[in-house]
Amino acid sequence: MSDTAEQGAPRASAADLEAWSCPAPLHPGEQVVMGHGGGGRLSAELVEHLFLPAFGEAASTATPTDASVLELPGGLRLAFTTDTYVVQPLRFPGGDIGELAVYGTVNDLAMSGAVPMALSSAFVLEEGLELDLLSQIASSMGRAAGRAGVRLVTGDTKVVERGHGDGLYVNTAGVGVVPAGVDVRPGRARPGDVVIVSGAIGLHGVAVLSRREGLEFGTDIRSDTAPLADLVATMLATDLDLHVLRDLTRGGLATSLCELALTAGVGIEFEERHVPVPEAVRAACGFLGLDPLHVANEGKLVALVRAERAGEVLEAMRRCPEGRDSAVIGRVTGEHPGVVVARTGLGGTRVVDRPMGEQLPRIC
Amino acid sequence: MSDTAEQGAPRASAADLEAWSCPAPLHPGEQVVMGHGGGGRLSAELVEHLFLPAFGEAASTATPTDASVLELPGGLRLAFTTDTYVVQPLRFPGGDIGELAVYGTVNDLAMSGAVPMALSSAFVLEEGLELDLLSQIASSMGRAAGRAGVRLVTGDTKVVERGHGDGLYVNTAGVGVVPAGVDVRPGRARPGDVVIVSGAIGLHGVAVLSRREGLEFGTDIRSDTAPLADLVATMLATDLDLHVLRDLTRGGLATSLCELALTAGVGIEFEERHVPVPEAVRAACGFLGLDPLHVANEGKLVALVRAERAGEVLEAMRRCPEGRDSAVIGRVTGEHPGVVVARTGLGGTRVVDRPMGEQLPRIC
Repeated sequence: MSDTAEQGAPRASAADLEAWSCPAPLHPGEQVVMGHGGGGRLSAELVEHLFLPAFGEAASTATPTDASVLELPGGLRLAFTTDTYVVQPLRFPGGDIGELAVYGTVNDLAMSGAVPMALSSAFVLEEGLELDLLSQIASSMGRAAGRAGVRLVTGDTKVVERGHGDGLYVNTAGVGVVPAGVDVRPGRARPGDVVIVSGAIGLHGVAVLSRREGLEFGTDIRSDTAPLADLVATMLATDLDLHVLRDLTRGGLATSLCELALTAGVGIEFEERHVPVPEAVRAACGFLGLDPLHVANEGKLVALVRAERAGEVLEAMRRCPEGRDSAVIGRVTGEHPGVVVARTGLGGTRVVDRPMGEQLPRIC
Repeated sequence: MSDTAEQGAPRASAADLEAWSCPAPLHPGEQVVMGHGGGGRLSAELVEHLFLPAFGEAASTATPTDASVLELPGGLRLAFTTDTYVVQPLRFPGGDIGELAVYGTVNDLAMSGAVPMALSSAFVLEEGLELDLLSQIASSMGRAAGRAGVRLVTGDTKVVERGHGDGLYVNTAGVGVVPAGVDVRPGRARPGDVVIVSGAIGLHGVAVLSRREGLEFGTDIRSDTAPLADLVATMLATDLDLHVLRDLTRGGLATSLCELALTAGVGIEFEERHVPVPEAVRAACGFLGLDPLHVANEGKLVALVRAERAGEVLEAMRRCPEGRDSAVIGRVTGEHPGVVVARTGLGGTRVVDRPMGEQLPRIC
């Protein structure tokens, strides 16, 4: 596994820029590039121009990257989602791939307003992986599932030859039930909605990057990986008519806001200085040439809330451990549909876009 | 991808035996070996001795390799399952990884008596994969989902650096609803039950193997990959009290019967000459030193049926395209619990066991 960073991950040394994965290939051509897995525009294009046409009538009309809500007999609504985790290194400050695989999928369910219920776990193991390491990661999944209140109910294990994997990849799919009266989805964003972020951004991406070979830049930043279902339950208890929830994973806050604006056909404005960015994240991003708005998080969400209930929701969020540092950062507007605008510290404005492809490969 | 067979797959040449993955490592030691993914005893040991203890209280009490049936509010029973597909080559006579990923998971749901409803699809793509090939495989998934009557409702795409994958791996998880009155599970096997196999065995494994580099042994055998949900629905319409269903994937008929015997604490006896083994499969297995009972299938099942209804169920199966060649091969007995016994052509008997690890690596 030690050759991952040599082949694909960024290096601290300016002389090693050749070793970067192509961060923004403008013309990806006919082959898969790292950026197709970055959660940005290339990922979205792959879904829109390859997967959806190929799946044809079998495809859901919903955006296939979010949790899907299925109508079951008896009127029950089932949320169903999947994510494969390929993060490198497998363990990073503040977490590991097992914890991430549980919380990431639990959070996807929670973003549809569902109460997470059960997860599957499916491993692709590379021949030669230490069983002790596998056991530690599986234990981490067990603890995380316990904390998140879900069960690991079904699974699969495949093994690939040495040199055809990277230690391990793990997929978790999840199911949960959407409570009656809850209707949380991107399409419900309305002009006037208040934009709330649940805490400091950029921690997960910088924590993972700080452990990549050659990037020991001396920070004590830890991943924010955490389950958000309790936070969401508290928010829904305060405002059952909550409009939109979105976790801030690949592509960061900027990608989440852009995708919400595009999906709902609304504009979003926010104050850059109101976005909670820890000083250490700001420093690391400056050093690495990254925009904190594009860096992945694994325990943060953005909520679009009716203005008249925003104060109460914010207070409720701040009483939860996972929402302690929640902050109002902006609002939804009927102007410039599909476009996200940040007000800068100097009083100007700038258009915020999704990254093209990969800022940080293999981040989740 | 062309070096897969060089590293891990069996070769036709007797001089190349060194290139085999260790097929039956008696002491796997402390690392993952290919056999841990073979679906045999090593796979079962990994679940029992590593995953279940590590998951702890979060683990389901059900065998985590089968579809799990969850009780939802209102008494609805939801079947939930997952499988990752790592088959090499990605296309093989009679199918490809996309079709396999849809039918494999649909069949897992059907084996719990559920009506399959929706699948997720999560890809791990290797940098450099041709987008055209990806599109063909995704199209194959779409067609297969259409044939199986399920929708592809949620998904994920990750990309790993060149040399850290194998073209693509795909995970599908699936959900379905178990109809009222249906209770199909291994624990329901009873002495006196009749054992029915739904058709010829060994086709998938031999078809995949025939395309591995160095193994062009000239056969026209095609994979039997097919959705079994319609066959199961027909069987349940004939006998709602059907006891047990099991698909014959990794580890083949022998592994399925052994696991059923162990889970239910019953003995199983069958007539070897009644098991439908095509002549071409028998010849290929003889050439390769494989036991057809251990070779994977992707469109066959075994059913344990009450004796008084077995005749009707068999007739109903034979009217379905997927069950045309169904045959009664044996019966469940109260003797030798946990043990499967085959009556040989010469009138003797032999104990049938699961393979230790890998006969054929990367078969599904």
